[in-house]
Amino acid sequence: MSSVKIQTEKHLLGTKHLSAQELTNILDRAAYWEQHPVKVSNHLQGRFVANMFFENSTRTRFSFEVAEKRLGAEVLNFSAAVSSVEKGESIYDTVKTLESMGIDAGVIRMKPNGLLAQLAEKVKVPLINAGDGNNEHPTQALLDLYTMRKHFGHLSGLHVAIIGDILHSRVARSNLWALRSLGAKVSFCAPSGMQAPELAEYAPYISMDEALKADVVMMLRVQLERHEGALFSSAADYRAAYGLTVERSERMARHAIIMHPAPVNRNVEIDDELVECPKSKIFEQMGHGVPIRMAVIERALS
Amino acid sequence: MSSVKIQTEKHLLGTKHLSAQELTNILDRAAYWEQHPVKVSNHLQGRFVANMFFENSTRTRFSFEVAEKRLGAEVLNFSAAVSSVEKGESIYDTVKTLESMGIDAGVIRMKPNGLLAQLAEKVKVPLINAGDGNNEHPTQALLDLYTMRKHFGHLSGLHVAIIGDILHSRVARSNLWALRSLGAKVSFCAPSGMQAPELAEYAPYISMDEALKADVVMMLRVQLERHEGALFSSAADYRAAYGLTVERSERMARHAIIMHPAPVNRNVEIDDELVECPKSKIFEQMGHGVPIRMAVIERALS
Amino acid sequence: MSSVKIQTEKHLLGTKHLSAQELTNILDRAAYWEQHPVKVSNHLQGRFVANMFFENSTRTRFSFEVAEKRLGAEVLNFSAAVSSVEKGESIYDTVKTLESMGIDAGVIRMKPNGLLAQLAEKVKVPLINAGDGNNEHPTQALLDLYTMRKHFGHLSGLHVAIIGDILHSRVARSNLWALRSLGAKVSFCAPSGMQAPELAEYAPYISMDEALKADVVMMLRVQLERHEGALFSSAADYRAAYGLTVERSERMARHAIIMHPAPVNRNVEIDDELVECPKSKIFEQMGHGVPIRMAVIERALS
Repeated sequence: MSSVKIQTEKHLLGTKHLSAQELTNILDRAAYWEQHPVKVSNHLQGRFVANMFFENSTRTRFSFEVAEKRLGAEVLNFSAAVSSVEKGESIYDTVKTLESMGIDAGVIRMKPNGLLAQLAEKVKVPLINAGDGNNEHPTQALLDLYTMRKHFGHLSGLHVAIIGDILHSRVARSNLWALRSLGAKVSFCAPSGMQAPELAEYAPYISMDEALKADVVMMLRVQLERHEGALFSSAADYRAAYGLTVERSERMARHAIIMHPAPVNRNVEIDDELVECPKSKIFEQMGHGVPIRMAVIERALS
Repeated sequence: MSSVKIQTEKHLLGTKHLSAQELTNILDRAAYWEQHPVKVSNHLQGRFVANMFFENSTRTRFSFEVAEKRLGAEVLNFSAAVSSVEKGESIYDTVKTLESMGIDAGVIRMKPNGLLAQLAEKVKVPLINAGDGNNEHPTQALLDLYTMRKHFGHLSGLHVAIIGDILHSRVARSNLWALRSLGAKVSFCAPSGMQAPELAEYAPYISMDEALKADVVMMLRVQLERHEGALFSSAADYRAAYGLTVERSERMARHAIIMHPAPVNRNVEIDDELVECPKSKIFEQMGHGVPIRMAVIERALS
Repeated sequence: MSSVKIQTEKHLLGTKHLSAQELTNILDRAAYWEQHPVKVSNHLQGRFVANMFFENSTRTRFSFEVAEKRLGAEVLNFSAAVSSVEKGESIYDTVKTLESMGIDAGVIRMKPNGLLAQLAEKVKVPLINAGDGNNEHPTQALLDLYTMRKHFGHLSGLHVAIIGDILHSRVARSNLWALRSLGAKVSFCAPSGMQAPELAEYAPYISMDEALKADVVMMLRVQLERHEGALFSSAADYRAAYGLTVERSERMARHAIIMHPAPVNRNVEIDDELVECPKSKIFEQMGHGVPIRMAVIERALS
């Protein structure tokens, strides 16, 4: 109940409780911005947006920053590595501090799961989730959907196979919820140690061979060092079992596309030659991050 | 002599040599900015302010940055952790470098005591102290005074008890000098290992029970790890002896307020339940940092 | 062939392939900006410049940032220490990512030698070299030439002695190529372990006594920790052999000047008393960095 209420307000905590209409509105507004490129508009002149990254990121923070500046907003960047979070200041206190200073919206990335919903109930300033634990990364999913819709013209009926470490992936979860809302079918492909059992009712686990038949083959970044049990003795073993190799890519359908949220581990989950191959939408995805985030920030501040 | 001369110029090195009139002017100008909120003004359009933090900070740097941007200035952020200070570059050379590049004012935080006054004599650009060693943190004191004056309507005659690690506190010192100038009475409360003997002639050391009778109970952040002699064997011991617990807060006067420069150690120097209680001005203090810093930066650049 | 082609486009990878005319154009445009100071112009309003520092820097990044902001550009700052480069993202992928997001120019500093030319062939966005390995640091050389030309009125016929760790110095190389193009004579002075044999055909190695007779005595920052073979057992030994001491400075010609790219190691390669002596142009050099970088960024974006 309360999380649904939060979602209908200005926060963007995830895609799970966004309606198909809300998702479509964001995609449509992003299309507007892509078709009407601005250097810098005065839409949000004098509004302050704080990018609060309690977990490092290059591309996501930059993408938000470009979006904010193109909308004419003032941008404050915070990254935990250079802040008093080191001296034990809580994430909550940092957000409250920024709210006290009069910021108009906060973009936030953090490691803990579940904290963001609590935060959103306690602060008045709209919060945009830039990735929290393995819970959600809604703007990544929105830019992924945007890329698919732009390529195929629609999302309904598409089969999207997400391959890799589903267990730790907020990208997989945000894509799952958003794609299902808009009528696409999602399948997962992962070794047993990287499966998320609680998601099995929403997306079947399929084999690599089956996954290669999907309309969209979405590879996830694998972080082998995370897996204590040593699921794979080497990156080469992972590649052999779950990597998108050139050989495997040749079995994909003619119309199918390759996606990856980046940064990629070349020659681990995806072969180097495929990153910029004709089927790959990887850098195009990144480009779509800007109009998507413009749409999301506008929504938060409108 | 020379430090008095410095103070009458555009630098803001501390509150010690500011006259009552100068202090009042800053508080009044901050009140103007609080009553006339601007998104972004063009007061300082095209002026460059460099925030040079040789010691990490979240809230102070952000507060200055918001103030600078609301005044329309261009902001350069420097934090030592990502700079060539690592390769031995001196603070002096960094400040001179920025001066050479044409910045109009510098906000500076650093660990060494006494260096700032030397710097101010050597550079032409106005410097604003954002905290130096355990010497001064004038904008913190100014926002504290602003908060008290706003609540009580006046400062003269107020009794302010400052509790905690006085020895290491630049906040205590800047508040002491500024409050005395404007007619308030300051008392300290600290265990002997945290007392600053050289301040005893300006503020008496009183017991915790006495301190709770003050109009303002200002708690300081305690960093137990700083105290080698192990004054307290645990945070719980410190809380028991010098913490503002819920029980102690109930003994405060009806009209009295709780202050803290933040970040707080919840359940060490102050109980978690008190941080946002009706008596607490903690987040309000942070909010006042922006108009105070607008006033201070304007003063430097006028 | 290909690197020449690159140079005639908008990139600025080094001074080696810049013609005398191109060098002069940049120096002249910098002179224009120095003579027509602007607070902030609208020359590059709405253009995005990303400063990508894969190696830390204070002065160079700030100098570029001031230049970019004075031209009215939007600035994105990236430093490797707080980015996903830590998780193995390649420099190439970062640059491509920023290109995808629509930046108009990239300023880049990195450790690897030779990578920049490859990058420049693969990306469409103009790249400006802010220092790569021990290869080139063209904007430093340009501001050095600017400082010399301003002081002497011309470059042709000047004798510039560069003293110190030539082997590891990109500053020495960029100065060498640019000075030779514009008719100056360059000599090097270095212990054998700090000489670059491949440069011997362009600049003779001379003794310290000879070097002190030059019109420009340019000291390089020495990083003794780099030299495993322990060329010098201490900083004092280095100073005795190759440092610009007060005594040695007194043997310089009356009209000669002292330069250093900074940051300086006081009392190692240059005596403390000389850093701001009348002969020294060290802080003036830094000031010239801003108009030079304005000229270079304009060139990239015109």
